[in-house]
Amino acid sequence: MTVNIHRSRLAALRVLMEKRRIDALIVPSSDPHLGEYVPDHWRVIRWLTGFTGSAANVVITKSFAGLWTDSRYFIQAEDQLQGSGFTLVRLRVPHTPEFIGWLGEKITKGGRVAVDGRLLSAVQMRMLLAAVAPHHAKVSLTTDLISSLWSDRPPLPDSPAYDLPVEFCGESRSEKIRRVREGMTANRADYQLLTAADDVMWLLNIRGNDIRFRPLLLSFALVSTKQVLLFADEGKVPGPLRSALDKDGVVLLPYDTITSVLSHLDDGESVMLSPSTTSAALFRAMPRKVRIVEDLTIATRLKAVKNSTELTNIRQVMVRDGVALTRFFHWLEESVGRIRVTELSASAMIGSLRREQDGCMGPSFSTIAAYNAHAALPHYVPDDETDAVLASSGIFLLDSGGQYFGGTTDITRTVALGRPGENIRRDFTLALKGTISLAMARFPYGTRGFQLDVLARKALWENGMNYSHGTGHGVGCFLNVHEGPQTIGTSASGDLRTVLEPGMVVSDEPAFYRQGEYGFRTENLLVCAEDRETEYGSFLKFETVTLCYIDNTLTEVSLLDEGELKWLNEYHENVYRSLATFLEPGIRDWLRKKTAPLSR
Amino acid sequence: MTVNIHRSRLAALRVLMEKRRIDALIVPSSDPHLGEYVPDHWRVIRWLTGFTGSAANVVITKSFAGLWTDSRYFIQAEDQLQGSGFTLVRLRVPHTPEFIGWLGEKITKGGRVAVDGRLLSAVQMRMLLAAVAPHHAKVSLTTDLISSLWSDRPPLPDSPAYDLPVEFCGESRSEKIRRVREGMTANRADYQLLTAADDVMWLLNIRGNDIRFRPLLLSFALVSTKQVLLFADEGKVPGPLRSALDKDGVVLLPYDTITSVLSHLDDGESVMLSPSTTSAALFRAMPRKVRIVEDLTIATRLKAVKNSTELTNIRQVMVRDGVALTRFFHWLEESVGRIRVTELSASAMIGSLRREQDGCMGPSFSTIAAYNAHAALPHYVPDDETDAVLASSGIFLLDSGGQYFGGTTDITRTVALGRPGENIRRDFTLALKGTISLAMARFPYGTRGFQLDVLARKALWENGMNYSHGTGHGVGCFLNVHEGPQTIGTSASGDLRTVLEPGMVVSDEPAFYRQGEYGFRTENLLVCAEDRETEYGSFLKFETVTLCYIDNTLTEVSLLDEGELKWLNEYHENVYRSLATFLEPGIRDWLRKKTAPLSR
Repeated sequence: MTVNIHRSRLAALRVLMEKRRIDALIVPSSDPHLGEYVPDHWRVIRWLTGFTGSAANVVITKSFAGLWTDSRYFIQAEDQLQGSGFTLVRLRVPHTPEFIGWLGEKITKGGRVAVDGRLLSAVQMRMLLAAVAPHHAKVSLTTDLISSLWSDRPPLPDSPAYDLPVEFCGESRSEKIRRVREGMTANRADYQLLTAADDVMWLLNIRGNDIRFRPLLLSFALVSTKQVLLFADEGKVPGPLRSALDKDGVVLLPYDTITSVLSHLDDGESVMLSPSTTSAALFRAMPRKVRIVEDLTIATRLKAVKNSTELTNIRQVMVRDGVALTRFFHWLEESVGRIRVTELSASAMIGSLRREQDGCMGPSFSTIAAYNAHAALPHYVPDDETDAVLASSGIFLLDSGGQYFGGTTDITRTVALGRPGENIRRDFTLALKGTISLAMARFPYGTRGFQLDVLARKALWENGMNYSHGTGHGVGCFLNVHEGPQTIGTSASGDLRTVLEPGMVVSDEPAFYRQGEYGFRTENLLVCAEDRETEYGSFLKFETVTLCYIDNTLTEVSLLDEGELKWLNEYHENVYRSLATFLEPGIRDWLRKKTAPLSR
Repeated sequence: MTVNIHRSRLAALRVLMEKRRIDALIVPSSDPHLGEYVPDHWRVIRWLTGFTGSAANVVITKSFAGLWTDSRYFIQAEDQLQGSGFTLVRLRVPHTPEFIGWLGEKITKGGRVAVDGRLLSAVQMRMLLAAVAPHHAKVSLTTDLISSLWSDRPPLPDSPAYDLPVEFCGESRSEKIRRVREGMTANRADYQLLTAADDVMWLLNIRGNDIRFRPLLLSFALVSTKQVLLFADEGKVPGPLRSALDKDGVVLLPYDTITSVLSHLDDGESVMLSPSTTSAALFRAMPRKVRIVEDLTIATRLKAVKNSTELTNIRQVMVRDGVALTRFFHWLEESVGRIRVTELSASAMIGSLRREQDGCMGPSFSTIAAYNAHAALPHYVPDDETDAVLASSGIFLLDSGGQYFGGTTDITRTVALGRPGENIRRDFTLALKGTISLAMARFPYGTRGFQLDVLARKALWENGMNYSHGTGHGVGCFLNVHEGPQTIGTSASGDLRTVLEPGMVVSDEPAFYRQGEYGFRTENLLVCAEDRETEYGSFLKFETVTLCYIDNTLTEVSLLDEGELKWLNEYHENVYRSLATFLEPGIRDWLRKKTAPLSR
C-alpha cells in the first residue's frame, strides 16, 4: 500500500496540533481578501487534501478530518478525497459556514479551537465564538500551522500593477476618493477600510494580475480624511504609477503593515468596514475603543453604479464580444459532424476568438462548455476526463465571458445541434420566457432584486419546473464578473437591502435542467436605466446590452406571448444591426438567418 | 380664551415629571399585549392629547410635546391636536419608532427618560437603551404617571370568556398544547410565554369580548412542560369553563401575577418568547440567568396554518358573507339616486346585513365606505364630518369584514355608480389584473410572500402606476383580521422568513388611487393549498375563498389576457353557483347578470 501524500500531511498537522494543544483546527479556502478566487499561495486546502474546488472549509480534530463543500463539488470531492484521510461533509445550504455549527456540537468542554484569523471573516469569527461559548472553549485566531509544513509553497504573486486610464474609468481617482470621503462624513467615520481587492482597484483606477480571471492587485486600502494608504508590495507598483498615486495623496505602504497600522488607530476614532470581507485578524488588530461602523463599503456601493463612460465602453465591448461569439457559433455549426469538436476544443476556440478582439485580456471565469447531460450541471467545467465529443444532435450550452479594458462580459447561450424535439423546445422556451420577462421589467425606484425574481421563474413554476440557483448577479467593469451588492434572486441568503439603481449591471440568467439529459440557460447582461417619472414615482427599466443571437430553432413560438415575441424579434434585429458590419460576408449572411424574425 | 383640557393635562403631567426629575416621558398607544387595538382603559393618548387614531407615540420634555403618527392620520391629528400643546410629528416610515431616534438626538447628557414598561416592547426597549446610551441617559421602565392624573379612567374590560367548541377549532386544546410543547422541546425551552391575546385564544380554544372587532380575552399564558398558566381575572372566566380548562391542565391565575411568576423562574431555565409582543416590563421581570429564546411564538406559527375543519368553516362563512354583500350591493344599486344614501348609512347597512347571517358577531374592523375622492385614501373611515352622499355617478369602495364563529372575513369591492369612463375602467382593470395574477400564482414550497408581490404590481408598474401599501396580510380564524406571520409585500419592513404553507389564509388586495379623484381595490382572501409534486419540488397554489361579484362595468376586457379573463369568468360562475340558492329570486336574477361571462 502506497502512502497517500495528503494522509501524511494530515498526520503531520495532527502532531503539530497535539504539541500546541489544539483540539480543533479550521482551515478555510480563502485568502486575506476573502474574495472568490485566491492565488496558488493560498490554495492550502488543495495542498492539504487534494481537493481542487474553489470553495471549502476543513476542520481537523483528533478523531475526524472533514471537508465542507457545496453540491457542485460533491462528486469531485468524493473522488479527490479518496484515501486522503479527509471525509466529505455535504453542505445543506451553499456558501454557509455549517462547519461552525458542527464545531458547536463537537467541541469538548474547555477545548481549544484554532484558525488563521487572516482567512476567516469577522462575521464568521463572531459565529464561531458564539457557537463554542456554551462549551467554554477557547478560540485562537493567530494560528498558522501550515507555513511550517508546506515547504514548496508557491510565493505570493508578484505581477506589477498598472494605471487604468480615465477613458476607461470615466472618473478620476481624486474624484472617487472625494466621493468616498463624502460617504465617510455622512457616516461620521474617520476611516474607510477596503479589504476587497476590487474595491481598491476601483477607487485608485489601477489594475493588476495577481489572480486568474480577475485584473486584481492583491492589496488593502485605508482611506482617511487626509490621505489614502495603499498596502501592497513595493515591487509590484512601478515608479511612474507610484508617482501618479502620490500626486493624488495615495501613500504606498508594505502589504503586511496593514495590521500594524490598524493597531495604532487612536481610541475614539471610527472606522467603516464590511465585516464579511474584513478578516478576523484585521478586525481584532484594532484597539477596542475604536468605533466600528459596519456596512457595505462606500466603494462597493459606488462601484456598482457604472458611470456613462463605463456604460459606453461596456456597450462597445459587447459588440466585440458578440462578434467573437457569432464567429464561434458559426464555426460550431460548420464543424460539428465534420471535424472532431469536444467541449474542451470548443472552450479553447471561444477563448482564442475572444482574444482576437481589441482589448481582450482573457476569460472572466472558467468557461462552461457543456454537451447534453453535462449542460444539466449548472457549474460544469470540462476537463480531460469528462470532455465529451459533440455530435450532430443534442444540446450544447456555452457560459463564458471575457475581460476587456472596457468591461467584463458574461453570457450564456444554448444551441441545438440538429433538430430539437418538441419537449426540448418547450423546456427551452419556458426558461427563455424568464430571461425575456425580466429584461422587460419596469419598476419603481426603490425596488430590490429579490422583488423581481419571480418574473424570471413564473413560466417555469406554472409548469412545475424551477432552477435551483439565483437569477442574476452584479457584474464589474473590467473587474470581478461576480460583483455585489445587487443580486436578483429569492434572497434566501442574498442581499435584502440594495435597491436597483440606474447604471447598475446585472445578469439575467433563468435556466432549466433535466438531470442526466440536458440543460438550458439564456444569459444576458442588463443595465438598469431610467424609464420615466410619474406621480407614483420614478420608474426604471433594463437595457439588454449582451449581443448574441438566441437559437430560434429551440424557441417554441406558441409559448411566447405577444410582448415576448416582439421583444425577441426586436432583440434579434438589434443584434444583427450592431454586429453585421464587423463580420465577414459569409458569417454576416448566416447571422441574418439566425436573427430572422419569428411569427406565429 | 377657554383653556384646552389637553393643555391642562399636559401641564399637570409636566409638574409630575419635574417632581420626579424626568426629562423625557414616553407615552405609547399600546396596551400590555402590544396588539393592534386596545380597550378604552389604555387609550391614554386619546385622554392626554385628544388624538383618536389607533397608533401613535407621545414624547414629552420640558420644552416640547410631540405626537408621532403615520400618514393615514396626518390631517386628523393636525385637527385634533389644535390647542392641545402637542405637536404632530409625521412618521417617515409607518409603524417605526422614530420617536426613539428623536430622543437619541435631543436627550440631555445624563438625562432621565421614563416610560411605562408594560406598554413598550422588548425590541423597542433595546432600541431606546441604545439610542440614549451615548448620552449616558438613564431609562426608567416603571413609570406610570397617568393613573394618578386620570380620575375618570375607564376600568379594564370585564366581559366573560367562553369556550369555542371543537367543531369550530378543529383541534382540541390538549392537542394544541401538546404541539406547542413539541416545539418547546425542539427549541430546548422550558417555557413558552404567550403575550399576544390571540395566541392565547387559539391555544386554549376560548374567546372573549374585551376589544372592539376582536373576540379576545385580554390574557397572558405561560406554557410549561407540565401545565399551562392562564393569567386572566377570575371573574372573567365562568365556572364551567374554568373546570374544563382545569381538566386540560390549564391553571387560572390573576391577570397581574404574570410579572411575579416570571420573576420567580429559576436560573438556567429557558423561556421562548417573541420580543416584539413581549413588553419591556415582562422581559425585565425575568431573572438575568433565565435563558431567553427569541422567536415568533410557536402558537403564532401553528395558528397561521388553518386545519381542515377551520378551512371548511371559512368556506361556509364566505357563503354567508357573500350573501350579505350581494344583498348590500343590490340594495345600493336600487337605492342610490332614489333615497339618500351616504357613506355612513351604507356602512350601517352592510353591518346589519352581516349581522343577519348565522354566527356573525359583528364587524372585524372599521368599515371603509368611501365615495370618489375618499376612495383614494386607503384607510379612510367616514365620520359625521366627512360623510358623503352617494350620487348616481362616481365610484364607491367598500372594505369591510365580519367576525363569525367559523371565521373572519375581509373583502373590498369597488363599484361604479352610473357609467364609468374609459380612464376609470383602465385604472380599475390594471389593479384588478394584480388581484387575479396573484390569485393564479403557482409556486414551489419554500416561497415567501415578498417573492410573489410583483405579480400583483406588474401591470401597474408597466404603466407607471403603483400603490403604497402592502399587497396581503394573514387573516385569523374568528380572531384578528390582521394575523401574522405571513404577508405579501415588498418587505421593506415585513417578515422575510416565513414561507407560505398550505392552510395559510392571506389577503390579495392590489389597488390604485388617484389622489383627489377616486380609488380602486379588489380584495379577496386566498387559502394556500397544495398543487402538485414534481421532481423540481412541491408546488403550491391559491384558492380564492371570498365570494362576491366584481363589477364588470369597471372591467376593460381588452386589458385582460386570456388566462385572466378565464379566471374572472370562472370566478363569477363560482360566485353565482355558491350564493344563488341563498338569495331571494329578484336578487338572484340580478346576481346572474352581474356574474355573466365577459368576452372580447
